Amino acid sequence: MWVESDKFHDECGVVGIFGHAEASNLAYLGLYSLQHRGQESAGIASVDEGDVKVEVGMGLVADVFTSARLERLPGNMAIGHNRYSTTGESHVKNAQPCVIKYSHGSLALAHNGNLVNADGIREQLVEAGSIFQSTNDSEVVLHLIAQSQAESLVERVTEALSQVQGAYSLVLMSENEIIAARDPHGFRPLVLGEVDGAPVVSSESCVMDLIGAKYIREVKPGEILRINDKGVTSYSPFPSVEPKKCIFEHIYFARPDSVLFGEYVYNVRKRMGKTLSEQAPVDADIVVPVPDSGNLSALGYAEASGIPFEMALIRNHYVGRTFIEPQSQIRHFGVRVKLNAVKELIVGKRVIIIDDSIVRGTTSRKIVKMMREAGATEVHVRISSPPSLYSCFYGIDTPTSEELIASTHNLEETRKFLTADTLEYLDLNRMLEVMQDDNKHFCTACFSGDYPVTPHQGEPSNQLPLFGGEATSVPEEESLPKPVS
Amino acid sequence: MWVESDKFHDECGVVGIFGHAEASNLAYLGLYSLQHRGQESAGIASVDEGDVKVEVGMGLVADVFTSARLERLPGNMAIGHNRYSTTGESHVKNAQPCVIKYSHGSLALAHNGNLVNADGIREQLVEAGSIFQSTNDSEVVLHLIAQSQAESLVERVTEALSQVQGAYSLVLMSENEIIAARDPHGFRPLVLGEVDGAPVVSSESCVMDLIGAKYIREVKPGEILRINDKGVTSYSPFPSVEPKKCIFEHIYFARPDSVLFGEYVYNVRKRMGKTLSEQAPVDADIVVPVPDSGNLSALGYAEASGIPFEMALIRNHYVGRTFIEPQSQIRHFGVRVKLNAVKELIVGKRVIIIDDSIVRGTTSRKIVKMMREAGATEVHVRISSPPSLYSCFYGIDTPTSEELIASTHNLEETRKFLTADTLEYLDLNRMLEVMQDDNKHFCTACFSGDYPVTPHQGEPSNQLPLFGGEATSVPEEESLPKPVS
Amino acid sequence: MWVESDKFHDECGVVGIFGHAEASNLAYLGLYSLQHRGQESAGIASVDEGDVKVEVGMGLVADVFTSARLERLPGNMAIGHNRYSTTGESHVKNAQPCVIKYSHGSLALAHNGNLVNADGIREQLVEAGSIFQSTNDSEVVLHLIAQSQAESLVERVTEALSQVQGAYSLVLMSENEIIAARDPHGFRPLVLGEVDGAPVVSSESCVMDLIGAKYIREVKPGEILRINDKGVTSYSPFPSVEPKKCIFEHIYFARPDSVLFGEYVYNVRKRMGKTLSEQAPVDADIVVPVPDSGNLSALGYAEASGIPFEMALIRNHYVGRTFIEPQSQIRHFGVRVKLNAVKELIVGKRVIIIDDSIVRGTTSRKIVKMMREAGATEVHVRISSPPSLYSCFYGIDTPTSEELIASTHNLEETRKFLTADTLEYLDLNRMLEVMQDDNKHFCTACFSGDYPVTPHQGEPSNQLPLFGGEATSVPEEESLPKPVS
Amino acid sequence: MWVESDKFHDECGVVGIFGHAEASNLAYLGLYSLQHRGQESAGIASVDEGDVKVEVGMGLVADVFTSARLERLPGNMAIGHNRYSTTGESHVKNAQPCVIKYSHGSLALAHNGNLVNADGIREQLVEAGSIFQSTNDSEVVLHLIAQSQAESLVERVTEALSQVQGAYSLVLMSENEIIAARDPHGFRPLVLGEVDGAPVVSSESCVMDLIGAKYIREVKPGEILRINDKGVTSYSPFPSVEPKKCIFEHIYFARPDSVLFGEYVYNVRKRMGKTLSEQAPVDADIVVPVPDSGNLSALGYAEASGIPFEMALIRNHYVGRTFIEPQSQIRHFGVRVKLNAVKELIVGKRVIIIDDSIVRGTTSRKIVKMMREAGATEVHVRISSPPSLYSCFYGIDTPTSEELIASTHNLEETRKFLTADTLEYLDLNRMLEVMQDDNKHFCTACFSGDYPVTPHQGEPSNQLPLFGGEATSVPEEESLPKPVS
Repeated sequence: MWVESDKFHDECGVVGIFGHAEASNLAYLGLYSLQHRGQESAGIASVDEGDVKVEVGMGLVADVFTSARLERLPGNMAIGHNRYSTTGESHVKNAQPCVIKYSHGSLALAHNGNLVNADGIREQLVEAGSIFQSTNDSEVVLHLIAQSQAESLVERVTEALSQVQGAYSLVLMSENEIIAARDPHGFRPLVLGEVDGAPVVSSESCVMDLIGAKYIREVKPGEILRINDKGVTSYSPFPSVEPKKCIFEHIYFARPDSVLFGEYVYNVRKRMGKTLSEQAPVDADIVVPVPDSGNLSALGYAEASGIPFEMALIRNHYVGRTFIEPQSQIRHFGVRVKLNAVKELIVGKRVIIIDDSIVRGTTSRKIVKMMREAGATEVHVRISSPPSLYSCFYGIDTPTSEELIASTHNLEETRKFLTADTLEYLDLNRMLEVMQDDNKHFCTACFSGDYPVTPHQGEPSNQLPLFGGEATSVPEEESLPKPVS
Repeated sequence: MWVESDKFHDECGVVGIFGHAEASNLAYLGLYSLQHRGQESAGIASVDEGDVKVEVGMGLVADVFTSARLERLPGNMAIGHNRYSTTGESHVKNAQPCVIKYSHGSLALAHNGNLVNADGIREQLVEAGSIFQSTNDSEVVLHLIAQSQAESLVERVTEALSQVQGAYSLVLMSENEIIAARDPHGFRPLVLGEVDGAPVVSSESCVMDLIGAKYIREVKPGEILRINDKGVTSYSPFPSVEPKKCIFEHIYFARPDSVLFGEYVYNVRKRMGKTLSEQAPVDADIVVPVPDSGNLSALGYAEASGIPFEMALIRNHYVGRTFIEPQSQIRHFGVRVKLNAVKELIVGKRVIIIDDSIVRGTTSRKIVKMMREAGATEVHVRISSPPSLYSCFYGIDTPTSEELIASTHNLEETRKFLTADTLEYLDLNRMLEVMQDDNKHFCTACFSGDYPVTPHQGEPSNQLPLFGGEATSVPEEESLPKPVS
Repeated sequence: MWVESDKFHDECGVVGIFGHAEASNLAYLGLYSLQHRGQESAGIASVDEGDVKVEVGMGLVADVFTSARLERLPGNMAIGHNRYSTTGESHVKNAQPCVIKYSHGSLALAHNGNLVNADGIREQLVEAGSIFQSTNDSEVVLHLIAQSQAESLVERVTEALSQVQGAYSLVLMSENEIIAARDPHGFRPLVLGEVDGAPVVSSESCVMDLIGAKYIREVKPGEILRINDKGVTSYSPFPSVEPKKCIFEHIYFARPDSVLFGEYVYNVRKRMGKTLSEQAPVDADIVVPVPDSGNLSALGYAEASGIPFEMALIRNHYVGRTFIEPQSQIRHFGVRVKLNAVKELIVGKRVIIIDDSIVRGTTSRKIVKMMREAGATEVHVRISSPPSLYSCFYGIDTPTSEELIASTHNLEETRKFLTADTLEYLDLNRMLEVMQDDNKHFCTACFSGDYPVTPHQGEPSNQLPLFGGEATSVPEEESLPKPVS
Repeated sequence: MWVESDKFHDECGVVGIFGHAEASNLAYLGLYSLQHRGQESAGIASVDEGDVKVEVGMGLVADVFTSARLERLPGNMAIGHNRYSTTGESHVKNAQPCVIKYSHGSLALAHNGNLVNADGIREQLVEAGSIFQSTNDSEVVLHLIAQSQAESLVERVTEALSQVQGAYSLVLMSENEIIAARDPHGFRPLVLGEVDGAPVVSSESCVMDLIGAKYIREVKPGEILRINDKGVTSYSPFPSVEPKKCIFEHIYFARPDSVLFGEYVYNVRKRMGKTLSEQAPVDADIVVPVPDSGNLSALGYAEASGIPFEMALIRNHYVGRTFIEPQSQIRHFGVRVKLNAVKELIVGKRVIIIDDSIVRGTTSRKIVKMMREAGATEVHVRISSPPSLYSCFYGIDTPTSEELIASTHNLEETRKFLTADTLEYLDLNRMLEVMQDDNKHFCTACFSGDYPVTPHQGEPSNQLPLFGGEATSVPEEESLPKPVS
């Protein structure tokens, strides 16, 4: 029933810091500023005198980590992980970092992403006698590292990662070094910074701002960083492929104050709003964002169109802090529990409602209805991204295509469902033009169905029904990309 | 360390509903939308077959009330209470509604406000043999009601309230009726609505929007409403005095989507920003609100001045959800845990920071510093209310005057403390002109020291040192620096 | 379903200590050793620099009192209270000590007992304008004290207690003294001791052993002790009546290591077993106690009869530590969850099962069945007290007479219900002969119906149906004692 | 500071049930009656429609398993595990059953015991590329099973177990069968029963009594049971060795109502007391058990000696239910928090205190002191087992030899430390004669140092310093003082 429950969700945030006396405290703060990337569990591992300590728990970072718990994480190296999980049960056994013992000692892993060939590799490992205690991709990676005969950790990691396909931005920690790696397509973000001379890696640059670190640069797609007493060494061991950075990070996931793929998210979102106003203008009296996801595109739309920006949907800031279960008889209160309209601003007005995306459409429909009840004479819905048609296999939690309204309804049907006067999505091409990246190296699979890496190895033809079989506008089979490997 | 910790705080929210099959569920939702008025405890009392049930607990509404607990509150009458406490310890014994047995049966009370002569009355009652189990004003009111010889509840309440002075917006419930009362000055808000034929009273009108009730009108200053099977009956038993509605409710406490004292808070805040821009213009590149308290006045300032509105301070929405205790070594991260600047928007820019008020100044100072670190060339601070100089005795939690920066520093000193290039507060008179109320019937004691009701009966001369002892050092108006333009 | 759930229950334990630097710590330990007298809530109040502090909570002493909480109870005076509640809901508002403010300052009260005329007094107080926040007897006592015009606390307490009837062993604390009082009949125990020169009062003498105090003597029936800087002063302000000490304290409630009414409980219980063996011998192979309530009487029975004592019912010591709710399908496991028979000891044997009392008989029946399943050829049940026929009104939680098997079934019917070969209870007169008290000053109302104080003032004739109307052996009306006053 | 804290501790209890509609409920009850074998964590795994479910948690069985949690464990097969852990941190990751996926599907394991060559095997597995997520022996067993090429599960288990040495009584569950296995020496107990036609295995026979199952027999040392739809099949794949059943199970660990190694524990303990009275008689007035560990041997001692049995040490049954942390100033209250003496029984008496064993001696010393303070004229300590000299490596938690008082003090020194008048331990040979097992097939390593399986493979000579370095200072038998008679 929450607004956020009708959004795509990121699955994880990671952080790593090497050579700082307060490593685990900084990892804690880092996870804190990455809380939007995962709220199910949080964990930190540190190395103290050659001994890997780990503390994980279910819940928000600030709930999991008491002072006492942070004190159990001494040492000057630490990695951390936030998890938002959809697959399987929520269970502390699935929380990361995952720590193992293998032939070269201890290894801790924090992983953001999704490996499309994890099942196949797992099957092979199991055939050969390995045992698995979870269904995490991370356990697959750790087995591959453990079975590598290579001499150095960075080589073992390289060998392991050369066998996997899909999305990963991960941080590994042994007793004496941290390895950071990002997959060749660079689906998920990963950045490098430095505080007090200590290198820091994290999913987003906002971590650097909080801990007072200097942002240095993105970890490049396909790059592996070895961080140890000798400093940061960069490796690019994988064949070069076209980067396919997740554009949805810019649309919704990342924090507006993060520099992502070279640009501030804030600016991208405002430009999307501006472009949307050029593409889909409408004569109206006020521009109203759906808070907070539509705030910046609405600001951009308003500035470009000259139509006044009004924050006429007020958010109850206490919603969602804890779970509430209102009685069934009063369920219809729905989105009002979270949002309320400032009626005087709306009555007699033609209103443009701006949001970043529509998933199931149920929340948007309620917001349109709320506008009408508040007296709006016209309600125009503008979405600052293209219709979401396909599932993501690269680390984002998306509903099945049957649940995506854009996958089962065409534009006019969706508009009717929303009961909006008009509905417009930002065009895919216009959206790409908004980006500074000259070559538009973005993954747009959730909009276009162009999957850079075939989701399930060897059986592409079976995939269609899963993500848009019904849609009349669905791409034909021949348009599907060939497997990359 | 939180931004909100450097604000004045409201002390309570109340709600009451009569004659609805889901009375306690609606009270629950009402408290939910009044959560901003008190986060320490929450409670609901209902009447079922002549029996008063009560459930109270420490924490947020959604934490206190599980489904099981709501089910223990059957009946078609209910009152509810949110508490934010500053006096004494947090303890469930102080949570309301307070339920007693007296000669006419049971009585439940939920009270927002503060009685300035409670101590004196308590002393008299105690002298006469009464016992007190708390230091709540509410217990004083209940004793007075119990000792009244009047025949009807509304008369007993009238008799009791005629003896108290100060601020109260309260809701009382007996086995068969609800009494709502607001003090003659009308310090705190109280409104009347109706859902499915059932009368509802609540601190703010946003409650009506959430539960689908129709907003009818304010409960008038000095008005007492008796709500029972015969409907709503209005009484005005007290001598008429000039209303003195709390203007700080408009400035900060109330939700922007509430109609307060006849006006939408949203509009008032925007007009305050507009007026501030006229009073204290400055040549700058962007207007940045301190989220969320400065959002609307910043929007008004930006619209009026034509300077672009940018939400360049990004708020971590997970801050404050739970208590965190970062290690002492890293305490200096301070406000960054909550807010982060979008550097690209700020670098090389002349920035106007807008907030609603300054209490101690510590947070504002950190925000100015954050702007400078982000590369701002100039930082101008604009506050959409006058300097906060005096303590409140009418139900608002304010620090002592020694802690109010405006009470101990003049404007220039405050500007220096904040390290701002310029600093301006909205003039008191201009602020009052913003209000639609023709006669400006507002309490401005925290700005002006004009206390409508003497705080401690009989000893007004002793009060000064408590809330303005350094009054001699308070800057006179002429000493205020001119805007740097 | 627990063995203990089929017992009468004590309602409270109290402790007080004056003039010891670790007063609240000692009160904590005292409550700890009185835990058997009440498990619902625990609380301690202390006085520090004239300020009364109080901490109460639901649950066991060791759960309620963390180190942090004890540290919030400084000072050299403290009183404590354990509560076992049956009336009304469990709620922290009912937990004691109850602390009030009245005309002479603060007062904290911890009370064990039950006042039979509390309702009447409450009614009068309420008529006169008092308000009540609980249904505790304690609140009645506090009102009476507050309304007294007497000059000293001890006089006010005396005045208040002279108005109440029933059972009370209570401890009161003002800012500078502790008052301990026991009702004229002395229903409930209360003893005096001393540690490091500091006087201690408590419900049982086992408290003295734990805290290293010297046991001095019982507080006498009708005695009031004033404990302050000048030492302990004794008052006996009430007309002398025949003491009526609760014999069930010796039978079941008190700890065996307590000196109670002048004798060690341990010895009394053993002698009851011995006397029972003389009264109701039976040819058998082993004597088996129902642990732990039957341990000592079984030991006495075995010693006197020469039949071997075998602890052939083994108790799961973890039962009852937390609440478990086994699935309904397996509920019939019943008492086996708590007790198990050592089969080899029982098979082919004639077994005497000894317990202290039978309430509903359900547990006893299951134990007899368990013996038979284990192979006993005969099962003889011997109870070391007379049949429990009547409810208690003096501070003990007893079921209604309909639930007391001895009230609805005669001896033979009860034997059949238990499926025992023989069943014998200790005769009332023999039981009294066991006691050293020459004049047999004991309350035996639960066995005899001889109520020393009429339960509900003015309506004794209505009481009969409540506690044994059906029993053929029930005493006739004329045998009921006249009201004491 | 607890009495139990100065005891050896069992490390686990296991249970398994196949083919019962309420499998997990029965496993829950089974764990409940095995609670004495491990209180740190509890877990149950069940199989529902080919899917293995598992629920584990920290704490007591009744705390971990709510009704909701048990409902998440459907199916007609279940295994359960209680854990008492000493190695490493308490962590839910170490709680069992451990569930893995391997080449033949899922496997759940519950293990009681300790493998002496686990480290060596782990090292080899790690060398070969395996990864380990815990330091549990169980993970070693699971890896060995997974790497077996054998066709059936029972063969794979056999292959795996043939590689390990030490103590194991374990229960394994796949999607369609349960395997129970006991090591060739049979260190730890394991029994077979049947309820409603469903086979049950458990650590002790008391489980059978609670769930209403019929006790069938012990699982034999070296036996493997396959339990599936075809019934129970027995395998004895290992070379026969002399059984070495843990005699401490009879002395202290097991419940008195369990049939252990063919005899009721109750009877063994009583006979140990009887034999002790013959070996070490003393002229005294009363025999007092240390409850509850000394109860039965004291009863045996008293019966044989004719000296009266008195339960003169009273236990506070609420001790230990929750953790308490008394203030440091009052720590000296020590054992009195748990035990109290009934003074009247002791004053002027010559007392024999009986306990099952002495570990550090600190508690025993306090008990002797308590007796003297209560007025005992003589205090004689009798222990119903030989001096505990050596650490156990077969699944029992024992302190290091430096902490074992018998390892660092000879008998006379120990007596002096305890401040007892006399001290006697049961002779090793006499203890063995108590047992019905003709060939005395017991492990007595903790008394004799005769380790049936060398603790750390290949380096036996290095072991001595670990558990008897002060062996030279161990008193020789002739140096033992004669009983003071």
